[in-house]
Amino acid sequence: MQAQSLNWKRQGLRIGLVPTMGFLHEGHLSLMDIAAAHADLVVVSIFVNPTQFGPTEDLEAYPRNLERDLALCRERGVAAVFTPEPSDVYGQEYQSYVSLEKLPNHLCGLSRPVHFRGVATVVSKLFNIVLPDIAVFGEKDFQQLAVIRRLTEDLNFPVRIMGGPIVRESDGLAMSSRNAYLSSEERASALCLSEALKNTAAEVEKGERDVAVLKASAEKTIFSRPHTEIDYIAFCDPQTLEAVDLIDGPTLMALAVKVGSTRLIDNQVLRVGLA
Amino acid sequence: MQAQSLNWKRQGLRIGLVPTMGFLHEGHLSLMDIAAAHADLVVVSIFVNPTQFGPTEDLEAYPRNLERDLALCRERGVAAVFTPEPSDVYGQEYQSYVSLEKLPNHLCGLSRPVHFRGVATVVSKLFNIVLPDIAVFGEKDFQQLAVIRRLTEDLNFPVRIMGGPIVRESDGLAMSSRNAYLSSEERASALCLSEALKNTAAEVEKGERDVAVLKASAEKTIFSRPHTEIDYIAFCDPQTLEAVDLIDGPTLMALAVKVGSTRLIDNQVLRVGLA
Repeated sequence: MQAQSLNWKRQGLRIGLVPTMGFLHEGHLSLMDIAAAHADLVVVSIFVNPTQFGPTEDLEAYPRNLERDLALCRERGVAAVFTPEPSDVYGQEYQSYVSLEKLPNHLCGLSRPVHFRGVATVVSKLFNIVLPDIAVFGEKDFQQLAVIRRLTEDLNFPVRIMGGPIVRESDGLAMSSRNAYLSSEERASALCLSEALKNTAAEVEKGERDVAVLKASAEKTIFSRPHTEIDYIAFCDPQTLEAVDLIDGPTLMALAVKVGSTRLIDNQVLRVGLA
Repeated sequence: MQAQSLNWKRQGLRIGLVPTMGFLHEGHLSLMDIAAAHADLVVVSIFVNPTQFGPTEDLEAYPRNLERDLALCRERGVAAVFTPEPSDVYGQEYQSYVSLEKLPNHLCGLSRPVHFRGVATVVSKLFNIVLPDIAVFGEKDFQQLAVIRRLTEDLNFPVRIMGGPIVRESDGLAMSSRNAYLSSEERASALCLSEALKNTAAEVEKGERDVAVLKASAEKTIFSRPHTEIDYIAFCDPQTLEAVDLIDGPTLMALAVKVGSTRLIDNQVLRVGLA
């Protein structure tokens, strides 16, 4: 892959990278379109990265369908799909990790302690292998995008990072490969995330600024559905991810909810108009 | 610097990087010659990297002479000297670090706990800024070279790492910017490092294989000089840096000795001929 990318770069071609864990959905495809609009060719990586899963997480269960993924990439005009095996990515004496000191100490990083070290490391590796000019990541994984923007700037990777908006099912559920885990009953309950976001946005629109009030009402929305368990409901600064008590500027509202045994996330940036 | 390097690369030029902390001596110049022999142009970085110094170390005192360094680089035909300020390298929200899990737990890493995290981080940044095809490091800092080889392979940097042999003063003292700290009396004592290496090589040549014996005799050589304090005398595997008890293959002998208040290092790889 690196030899191919070096060859493309020698020809002056601009490479757009879309890193994924496969089991592609419309969300991933929208990122490929963004990459294609800003580069001469698109590379998609498909790699279920073991170092970003904790020991009790769903590494083994993570859904896979390489045949279908390749067909979707082909249809979308992708130039190359990079599908390494874990043993290609992490050799025998492997021991180097990229970690961030602050951004992981919030939101998903709290319940997934090794997750962002794994993400930062594998993304650094993908940047060095694929040598992209731009790389596109979904905004559903808001914290991941923040971590990647930060590490790209901090480590001076010559890569422009772009975010792609969350793509939703017609009823509002944010697309995720993990939605495949949901039973039909859980699928109905999973709507609580987008409902909580929508209700909160409406409350802010009506003038509510107190995060404690907004949080309590989001909790109510989520618990109104069966089989739901809240990991976090967070309101925070979109850059630093530090918690805020009052909505007085652009504020990230981020949710992680277990529906049955499936952990789902969703988010939106709340904006308050000038009074 | 990155824009200049991207420009050079677009022209198909191969970049050789020699990262330094300045106060250049013949050792550094020999690395520039190696770089020049394997690349179309040479970039030297001069940066006394704060993140690789511990709180009690010699960051402030580290010798500097940029005027002289620039003149030496010019004479050597260097294409660019990259001399960032710490605030250019580490911005306000800086928080990303590259660290290795095993190689730093030996030799200098034991008495300098943050050192190799700082080295791995700044070298990763320099690779991303200067975008070299090859990078040359001195073998005097043997563990540093091992760390950099490892992280380059682990993180897939498209950079070939080369080591340059230790350059010595006519009496055997390994060249080091820190030699400038030595009083004339200490300068004489500092010979104990190269003497210990030479004596050990002779003993191995004569058939001694027991590390305990070799270590005791190296200690004696070092303590025969005044103002010397041993940080470590180590015999280890040159790849993993793990300690060995017996010389039965290529073995790194590495020394760190304080002479007065100046900490000096030196090393050699011992080789045993076929019997």
